[in-house]
Amino acid sequence: MLGNFTYCNQTAVHFGPDSMEALKSELDKYGKKVMLTYGGGSIKKNGIYDKVVKILKECGKEIFEDGGVMPNPTVEKLAEGCKIAKDNDVDLILAVGGGSTCDYAKAVSVSAYCEEDPWEKYFIRFEEPECKIIPVGCVLTMVGTGSEMNGGSVITNHAQKLKIGHVFGYKVFPKFSILNPEFTFTVPRYQMVSGIFDIMSHILEQYFSGDDVNTSDYISEGLLLSLIDSAEVAVKDPTNYEARSNIMWTATWALNTLIAKGKTTDWEVHMLGQAVAAHTDATHGMTLAAVSIPYYRHIMPYGLPKFKRYAINVWKVDPKGKTDEQVASEGLDKMKAWMEKIGLEMKISNFGVTKDMIEKIADSTLIMEGGYKVLTKSEIEEILKACL
Amino acid sequence: MLGNFTYCNQTAVHFGPDSMEALKSELDKYGKKVMLTYGGGSIKKNGIYDKVVKILKECGKEIFEDGGVMPNPTVEKLAEGCKIAKDNDVDLILAVGGGSTCDYAKAVSVSAYCEEDPWEKYFIRFEEPECKIIPVGCVLTMVGTGSEMNGGSVITNHAQKLKIGHVFGYKVFPKFSILNPEFTFTVPRYQMVSGIFDIMSHILEQYFSGDDVNTSDYISEGLLLSLIDSAEVAVKDPTNYEARSNIMWTATWALNTLIAKGKTTDWEVHMLGQAVAAHTDATHGMTLAAVSIPYYRHIMPYGLPKFKRYAINVWKVDPKGKTDEQVASEGLDKMKAWMEKIGLEMKISNFGVTKDMIEKIADSTLIMEGGYKVLTKSEIEEILKACL
Repeated sequence: MLGNFTYCNQTAVHFGPDSMEALKSELDKYGKKVMLTYGGGSIKKNGIYDKVVKILKECGKEIFEDGGVMPNPTVEKLAEGCKIAKDNDVDLILAVGGGSTCDYAKAVSVSAYCEEDPWEKYFIRFEEPECKIIPVGCVLTMVGTGSEMNGGSVITNHAQKLKIGHVFGYKVFPKFSILNPEFTFTVPRYQMVSGIFDIMSHILEQYFSGDDVNTSDYISEGLLLSLIDSAEVAVKDPTNYEARSNIMWTATWALNTLIAKGKTTDWEVHMLGQAVAAHTDATHGMTLAAVSIPYYRHIMPYGLPKFKRYAINVWKVDPKGKTDEQVASEGLDKMKAWMEKIGLEMKISNFGVTKDMIEKIADSTLIMEGGYKVLTKSEIEEILKACL
Repeated sequence: MLGNFTYCNQTAVHFGPDSMEALKSELDKYGKKVMLTYGGGSIKKNGIYDKVVKILKECGKEIFEDGGVMPNPTVEKLAEGCKIAKDNDVDLILAVGGGSTCDYAKAVSVSAYCEEDPWEKYFIRFEEPECKIIPVGCVLTMVGTGSEMNGGSVITNHAQKLKIGHVFGYKVFPKFSILNPEFTFTVPRYQMVSGIFDIMSHILEQYFSGDDVNTSDYISEGLLLSLIDSAEVAVKDPTNYEARSNIMWTATWALNTLIAKGKTTDWEVHMLGQAVAAHTDATHGMTLAAVSIPYYRHIMPYGLPKFKRYAINVWKVDPKGKTDEQVASEGLDKMKAWMEKIGLEMKISNFGVTKDMIEKIADSTLIMEGGYKVLTKSEIEEILKACL
């Protein structure tokens, strides 16, 4: 059943090998001052930085550099970006990079003119911006977060050992995003498979919730099947355009609000993974991978019909002569085998988590209420121990 | 493989039993003069007209009535609507009805200030508007066309025996659409199943094209499975909200540009169906139903891998021990049986088409080039004869 909702996603996505050609016409819509936001400098090595700067100059833009966005962007970096944006009164933030860079750009866009502490306002109290919002555009170089077509922004506060995401409303969505699958060819394998699991997790967080079956679930299954098939190709052949383009487009639709419409969602895997990341700084998608199977085995009895459906429709488990539990469990077995095959991290001990850290990680794990089981503190500890 | 494309769909959709509550805030964005466009008056019987007028008055709007939009809107009606819109300098066209009403509203929106003959400009020469475009909003009461979230507009010219659709660009998309599945409860069964097949045909026209498999095809399969399951429920129980809501949302995504992105598409079934409708004025979805099976049997050998995939993934045909042709053909058999079961028209003779009309219908059938076989005139006649 699809209940009440509003769907409104106004991000213009330019996709494909020639998509950078659309940047000029998009830039023409904004003023002269552009803040150029990017990560650790890989875009300087692979030539994307030069391409973007050339187009910015051709459009007569004044560039304000804001490099060094880290994989888990911090509150300190956010403050730095806000200063650049506000001091220079920039007209557009152009984020060139992966999800962290896009997330960070959106955080700056709503924080630069915010009169309160943005961490407290947006990431602790989850309020919406009332101040001026600086428009954001993205040139995506890594795939996974879906940040290119949504209002999501995840920021890490190391002092508080918290990594928290705020899903902002429509006004904070990027105005445009350039998605060239070829830009992802050079992403290292570890980051690529991490991104692939991030996509899978986004879909599953929305799929594993609710008692009925609706159009959103059917679309989710289509996206999962597309992702699974293309991931296997991309792992073997990283420059396979067909696979990379399918993964890139699946990532966008996995988290641009569509598949959550009219239904409840879970997001507990992200809460567990983000808590692990806040204590280890491990790669986002890998933390999700390492907690997923123990978490799903734990909640499976509470959402058995959906886990059975998942096993049959996504992992092609033959249900003949098996109990529902057996079918559902076999689905998770197949998922685990596939995860191992593409090279995902399957244990949080790989990130340096030890048994004595479990209690603190559990303390910083937010408890969600939309999944098949609202976890208790001791259940979280039990799941985390099973992830070691 | 997903090639170059731009995805940009800025229609805000308000969905669900309470979606009419959003009308007020949407109306507030436009000026005082609203052209209220609707069909044959069923909205006056079921109370929707009164609800809309009440909200329009509460918002202080001046209403310009434009009722009587027919199922296949004509060039003559278009001229009438343009006169009302232009003479009164309306700020918004609010279409309350099904796809025909929405299609017609979009045609008026680009034609009222058009200095040339809009039929010639838009429907013969397929040009984009250069004139002022009047914003359009929709309150949907019937499901099928997807017109609520796209730039499509189909107009019929009886004098020329032509029914032609123009898919306009993003600027012509409705600004907002109100989708309340409960409004569709009272749609007569014939119109309901006709709409259901219109949705299926939209998906298949985009699915049956191209040699590779990409994310769009996987999403299409998800939408088809959702539609097939929900249609069977809705036919038995027309006021089943779950089924009606899934059908309504599937219809929107079947034709809001998403599943055509990065791939080629066919649309020959629509060309055949529209030619039949232009000569008989039969219901749109029923004309598509009556031509589909003979058309797909004819082109199956040219797109065998896709037809095989369709049979397995959508119609759950077991491929074991069968040739590809047998699997593909069995898929079409299952599709035909399902169509008969839900009560679709399976012969164009049911609309009054006789053998001696075939040549003229073939003459007004446009030949598309994106499908698995570019038809010749004699192939069109052969297919139409098989539909008798």
